[in-house]
Amino acid sequence: MNEHTSKKFDAELEGIRTRVLQMGGMVELQIVKAMEGLTGGDLLLIDQVIENDNRVNLLEIELDEACNQVIAKRQPTAVDLRMVSTVQKTITDLERIGDEAKKIAKTAKQLHTATSNFAPQIRLSHIADAVVDMLRTALDAYARLDTISAAQVVRHDKEVDAEFKGIMRQLITYMIEDPRTISQAIELMFVAKSVERIGDHAKNIAEYVVYMVKGRDVRHTSLEEIEREATR
Amino acid sequence: MNEHTSKKFDAELEGIRTRVLQMGGMVELQIVKAMEGLTGGDLLLIDQVIENDNRVNLLEIELDEACNQVIAKRQPTAVDLRMVSTVQKTITDLERIGDEAKKIAKTAKQLHTATSNFAPQIRLSHIADAVVDMLRTALDAYARLDTISAAQVVRHDKEVDAEFKGIMRQLITYMIEDPRTISQAIELMFVAKSVERIGDHAKNIAEYVVYMVKGRDVRHTSLEEIEREATR
Repeated sequence: MNEHTSKKFDAELEGIRTRVLQMGGMVELQIVKAMEGLTGGDLLLIDQVIENDNRVNLLEIELDEACNQVIAKRQPTAVDLRMVSTVQKTITDLERIGDEAKKIAKTAKQLHTATSNFAPQIRLSHIADAVVDMLRTALDAYARLDTISAAQVVRHDKEVDAEFKGIMRQLITYMIEDPRTISQAIELMFVAKSVERIGDHAKNIAEYVVYMVKGRDVRHTSLEEIEREATR
Repeated sequence: MNEHTSKKFDAELEGIRTRVLQMGGMVELQIVKAMEGLTGGDLLLIDQVIENDNRVNLLEIELDEACNQVIAKRQPTAVDLRMVSTVQKTITDLERIGDEAKKIAKTAKQLHTATSNFAPQIRLSHIADAVVDMLRTALDAYARLDTISAAQVVRHDKEVDAEFKGIMRQLITYMIEDPRTISQAIELMFVAKSVERIGDHAKNIAEYVVYMVKGRDVRHTSLEEIEREATR
């Protein structure tokens, strides 16, 4: 590439990166609102989350297309190509996070319009805050090419998984002690599962950041290896 | 590209496509064995599924890298680029299917080493057969660039989703009627959820096939639109 083309490429890539971060912010808000809807039962808010998912989906398709155009026009190699393919992977995970937020909103609607009053008293706000924090850190790591923060996200995912297992045990106890809570407990189980999955997607994004910066695919390697790679 | 380069590119792409189909076959076998382990309790078979997941993961990384090399070296555009980016998306879904098979195997292990005898009498073999069939059809559609079969997969996913909901209702009934079945019922719920997700991934692969052949991104559009696009 000559200097002129390279500058154009940089500008295009920067534009795409900015939109990925916007998409990330939108998805983050979707999770926060869905959880708010679950706790507070504001049906307008809940419907808003369900409807907004379309916008997330559209953004994914647009950004994917923009990446393909950049590849076709600029024919990037090495680190530039890694940048583009990282975007394509990241937006897939963001879109799936959006799907989970929508599922949570749908469950929230069901729970708040249900007639049963036998809800297990369980708080999901802590685990939800944790995964929102993971997502924010992963996107921040992506924006600043910061592999140390990215490795932290991978570490936090283990804590989230442990917390998810604890919630499952609590819910099972509720169901056994009072079978009238079974239906609602199961709905909450799937909400907890969605939250745990959002953590997995945030972890995926963090791993792409390490790959993008270091050029080594760290998916499916141990946390220790990722941390070694990140601090190298 | 001159003719010579283009032939080389075709050969490389063909090699990659063959390996995607091999990966697909491997993943299909993982599901079948995991479900067999769940039904029969053969712990050796179950452990084999858990260990084999590493091979699926490695294949994903290798194929992803091979695609990046083809992009960097051959700089494909239009339909050729779509072919490569379809591979990259497809292998992500195949790897996630592998994860679900591993999860099923782990649950199978837990259920068959548990001391409780209060298992809900529920059959998951029908829904599992349905998603294996979806996956096979999606891969076949990919191999033959057959958008009609791809559209069928999208249609079958709706049936699988309906069957999943039915299974959930049955399991809830078991739990309410006999709370001693709660722990095992919940394990089976998550197996059913894994199976349902495998169907989603097969559907994703089918949608990529339509995109690859027709050049139009049909994700997030209605079944009717996909069928229109497939038969155009």
